[in-house]
Amino acid sequence: MALPRYYTQQACGLARALEVVGERWTLLIVRDAFYGLRRFGEFTAHLEIPRAVLTERLNRLVEADVLARVPAAAGRSEYELTAKGRTLWPVVRSLMSWGDEHYAVAGPRRLFRHAADDGPLDERGICAVCGREIAIGDTVVVPGPGLGPPSDDDDAVSAALRDPHRMLEPLRD
Amino acid sequence: MALPRYYTQQACGLARALEVVGERWTLLIVRDAFYGLRRFGEFTAHLEIPRAVLTERLNRLVEADVLARVPAAAGRSEYELTAKGRTLWPVVRSLMSWGDEHYAVAGPRRLFRHAADDGPLDERGICAVCGREIAIGDTVVVPGPGLGPPSDDDDAVSAALRDPHRMLEPLRD
Repeated sequence: MALPRYYTQQACGLARALEVVGERWTLLIVRDAFYGLRRFGEFTAHLEIPRAVLTERLNRLVEADVLARVPAAAGRSEYELTAKGRTLWPVVRSLMSWGDEHYAVAGPRRLFRHAADDGPLDERGICAVCGREIAIGDTVVVPGPGLGPPSDDDDAVSAALRDPHRMLEPLRD
Repeated sequence: MALPRYYTQQACGLARALEVVGERWTLLIVRDAFYGLRRFGEFTAHLEIPRAVLTERLNRLVEADVLARVPAAAGRSEYELTAKGRTLWPVVRSLMSWGDEHYAVAGPRRLFRHAADDGPLDERGICAVCGREIAIGDTVVVPGPGLGPPSDDDDAVSAALRDPHRMLEPLRD
């Protein structure tokens, strides 16, 4: 891990976590990686993040072993969550649930379901049908009531995420 | 809630949550409020945060109804978590657990136990003794193996947190 940059006097796990994922945009990038985004252009299209910022954040996440840069077609690179990166799902989920609970007037934009039995997952990732805690790879993200109708302005990623989609799987075939 | 400042194109719960608690230092302040810190001077002593930054962050947290400013002795104000603020505990806990899991070489600095039966709580807040999910008010924070020995340089807050302490309760009598 890189040396502490911000919280030099703070040695607790929270401060260490925030050193890695606490910068602006970083957890949105990680969230999108859980949704199956892998390409630089997918992140820029979906997040409308400045390219220089995205480059810096991706480099930091690779350096921290949260994302891995993997070779793809046509000499390009793609980014995928590492095993360590996938352990960030409770972090992303808890923040998303908190924001939905307090700020989503029309309800959540995305909901999560258990792939095997289609049961809805609660904020702890527990399936209402089988009662088990569902792993991220067995979770499907589906549109929620807060998503709103499709728009001609929707980017390709937003459009793809209007269909139920298994987490971590690439958005395209 | 204030208008979105950073993620204007991002309407998901995660972006909304990060608008409120995603700024540098904010979640460390919230963590400390869970530990029972209430006074401006306690936060500055424990966090070594610049006073102007702390003032700005506290104002934002009050504005967002995460903290409430309450009158205290000698005309001072104190800060306490609101009901909404207390729902941030899964966020703080999940980030702390992630940081501890991946970066705490000597183990966590703080551990959490169930006040009623002294059972250790896991990263989901579930007690190993009674098997139930324990509310924040029934949780005790105790020193963990990563805390290290006391030092003459310890501030009063750090020293107070060397004893088991029930979450949310003020640090002093």
